[in-house]
Amino acid sequence: MKSLANLQQEAMEEYLTFLRFQSVSTDLQYKDQVLACAKWLSEYLKNLGFHVEQWETSGHPTIFASHLEAGPDKPTLLMYNHYDVQPVEPLNEWVSPPFEPTIRDGEVYARGAEDNKGQCFYVLQALKTLLKRDGRFPINIKLCIEGEEECGSVGLSKLLQQPKRREQLKADYLAIVDMGIHDAKSPAVTLGVRGIVTMEVQVQGSKGDLHSGSHGGIVYNPLHALVEILAKLRDSNGKIAVPGFYDGIVPLTDEEKAAFELSFDHPRYEMMFGATPSGGEKGLQPFERAWLRPTIEINGITGGYGGPGFKTVIPAKAMAKVSCRLVPDQDPERVGQLVASFIEKSAPEGIRVAVKILEGKGRAIRANPSSRLVSAFAQAYEELFQKPCKRIMDGGSIPIVTELAKACGGEVVLMGFGLPDDQIHAPNEHFGIDRIEKGCFVIARTIELLANV
Amino acid sequence: MKSLANLQQEAMEEYLTFLRFQSVSTDLQYKDQVLACAKWLSEYLKNLGFHVEQWETSGHPTIFASHLEAGPDKPTLLMYNHYDVQPVEPLNEWVSPPFEPTIRDGEVYARGAEDNKGQCFYVLQALKTLLKRDGRFPINIKLCIEGEEECGSVGLSKLLQQPKRREQLKADYLAIVDMGIHDAKSPAVTLGVRGIVTMEVQVQGSKGDLHSGSHGGIVYNPLHALVEILAKLRDSNGKIAVPGFYDGIVPLTDEEKAAFELSFDHPRYEMMFGATPSGGEKGLQPFERAWLRPTIEINGITGGYGGPGFKTVIPAKAMAKVSCRLVPDQDPERVGQLVASFIEKSAPEGIRVAVKILEGKGRAIRANPSSRLVSAFAQAYEELFQKPCKRIMDGGSIPIVTELAKACGGEVVLMGFGLPDDQIHAPNEHFGIDRIEKGCFVIARTIELLANV
Repeated sequence: MKSLANLQQEAMEEYLTFLRFQSVSTDLQYKDQVLACAKWLSEYLKNLGFHVEQWETSGHPTIFASHLEAGPDKPTLLMYNHYDVQPVEPLNEWVSPPFEPTIRDGEVYARGAEDNKGQCFYVLQALKTLLKRDGRFPINIKLCIEGEEECGSVGLSKLLQQPKRREQLKADYLAIVDMGIHDAKSPAVTLGVRGIVTMEVQVQGSKGDLHSGSHGGIVYNPLHALVEILAKLRDSNGKIAVPGFYDGIVPLTDEEKAAFELSFDHPRYEMMFGATPSGGEKGLQPFERAWLRPTIEINGITGGYGGPGFKTVIPAKAMAKVSCRLVPDQDPERVGQLVASFIEKSAPEGIRVAVKILEGKGRAIRANPSSRLVSAFAQAYEELFQKPCKRIMDGGSIPIVTELAKACGGEVVLMGFGLPDDQIHAPNEHFGIDRIEKGCFVIARTIELLANV
Repeated sequence: MKSLANLQQEAMEEYLTFLRFQSVSTDLQYKDQVLACAKWLSEYLKNLGFHVEQWETSGHPTIFASHLEAGPDKPTLLMYNHYDVQPVEPLNEWVSPPFEPTIRDGEVYARGAEDNKGQCFYVLQALKTLLKRDGRFPINIKLCIEGEEECGSVGLSKLLQQPKRREQLKADYLAIVDMGIHDAKSPAVTLGVRGIVTMEVQVQGSKGDLHSGSHGGIVYNPLHALVEILAKLRDSNGKIAVPGFYDGIVPLTDEEKAAFELSFDHPRYEMMFGATPSGGEKGLQPFERAWLRPTIEINGITGGYGGPGFKTVIPAKAMAKVSCRLVPDQDPERVGQLVASFIEKSAPEGIRVAVKILEGKGRAIRANPSSRLVSAFAQAYEELFQKPCKRIMDGGSIPIVTELAKACGGEVVLMGFGLPDDQIHAPNEHFGIDRIEKGCFVIARTIELLANV
């Protein structure tokens, strides 16, 4: 991997070019930018010698690339990334513009710097580096780089229903390269993510806004209805109060739990995030709550007047966004319906409540801690860091992972070089240049190791 | 009053001139327009023969005008109006521009057409008409026309602390000409308004927004904290659950209640507002809840993501605006502190909650239903409408009313010709030309009647 240093200038230019595409997938006004980004990626992979297909969807395309010259008696590694990014609002909190990548103290600041363009980019660099050094790969490589991860993977999900696409995605190993490590010095592979279901709650009272003096005490205020309903979602122990929510969950044995690195550094967490780990279910450890248990979160509320001063209004309507994170054995559709029904049935007289379950549901996935794939990645990490590689989980969700794993049919791992303070999904997202180099090493080294197992 | 018809053309021109001033008091960019409006009023009253003073404040001036030629053995009537208006946003919802008054179907559309320039204008017209007909007033007249009603009456409130100003405002009778009737055919005088205290609730968790997957279950979500706190403000019977909130309130006797016209037209209300009267305290009639009982309302909530699609965020902070409407015997400052303290003490571990009580507090006022002043106005209304005049209340608040009533020292009534669908504080505010004529009659006739009691 020594040749990487020589690539650095060119690699940096390519990385920054990748980041400049405003590939915000949730907002249709960026559609052309998303497409331009897909095109750039396709060209990049063609130039490396990959066979590239742009799989069209109702939304943004998925890039599928394969390099199968190692031959049928060699294993195949499928790697998953995404080239779309989160919206950038609030724009005024960015120190430098989100689509003008800027380097400060060895970190690249831009929307997507980490999630997931940075992580996608070190995969590209690892492949380029191996080809430059060896002229070939020791195993077969497939890449699946989608453009709708941040808006529910609707297109890829439909592609995965087609037998032809499922066949193309078959592989011995699947690496989801969209994960992180807990701190810059602690190698770790991720054994799973939680499932997810998201919904929008619309609450409507009167047909128009009302004056809170003249009508306060007469009508039911939609904001009161909304807070009362949402407050009922959890009981005083932090457990979710929706009947049936936990049905069917098989509890982990102590042995199973022991495979996970659950130790939690309270002072470090408080220092990093300015928050105490005081949420979730009482009586459980923080990582147990975030990795091995389902949760429900309110992700947004809007209604009435929020500007300076005061406006004596009873709003006609109010809205909340709610999401559930799920563990294996929970079906997102079933859980979504349970929560939606609980919310709708909680409407007081005079208030209409409608819950819409949004696109982008996904089941949880939890991998075997000692598979060949997990072992190879762990060894690559250990060579790089010179210390044992932990097995962790991530409380987040990549809705497409379960479906993709099913199509792939092989062993699964989730890995990456994200750090907890990368500000993904937030203003001033950033990623370290050193981590591009490290990621490049781990991907390339794992490819070598998988050739020999 | 027959001479009014002759004035109509001139009166209409004056009314429209008054409406063209962009006297938005909350926004400093309109300061010159507010001043120009005050100057126009002063000149108008000087031309009628009033002694006029422009009382300067830290904000916009109050116009004080007096005509005391009836002499010290005749009673004095003080009338209150305001010449400032609400902001006009959202501007694109106005059918015709807010400061270019436009007549459609006998209604004048403009910001302030009703609130309060229309109601102020028929007072001016009544005075002009009486002087034109009789050359004099049968009683002494004082006018207090402020320029900050829509932004908390801060200036007038300070003026009322000066013994000299209080002395000037002494009168036997005080009419607050800023009210309405329930429908165009039902005469009514208003015996009071509720008090008010408003506050802003800031909730803070982590130092920045967090990903709801990675951190959901670890931290306490500020939006959950906020809905749980706000849901606690009222119990399941709609009663306010803040300890001490109702302390000191003297319940009305059935006889006292009987003086108020509490009958409520459910079908008409539902048709007008598209809402059922299902809010407030259980077991009480709608108008009893809105007039004679205090309420607490959430006027706005913002936090997290509210745009299209979904954003898996645990916001660092969230905010709510909360207001209480009060009845006599409740001190706004004390109630505000009780509510603020209750909210702050409800903060769960890991969440900081800060409540700021805002400007614009005011006590409730409730007048004697059978005072000489109320009886005179009621008689004038009955002569005009040829049917009994109701005694009603208004659930809204005019924070300055109690202070002004205290300074005045006389009997109080609130009256006016507003109708529930005048769209005050909203786009397309309007007022009927017929109501200018009716208001002019009632004011002039009441002045005659007060000379003889």
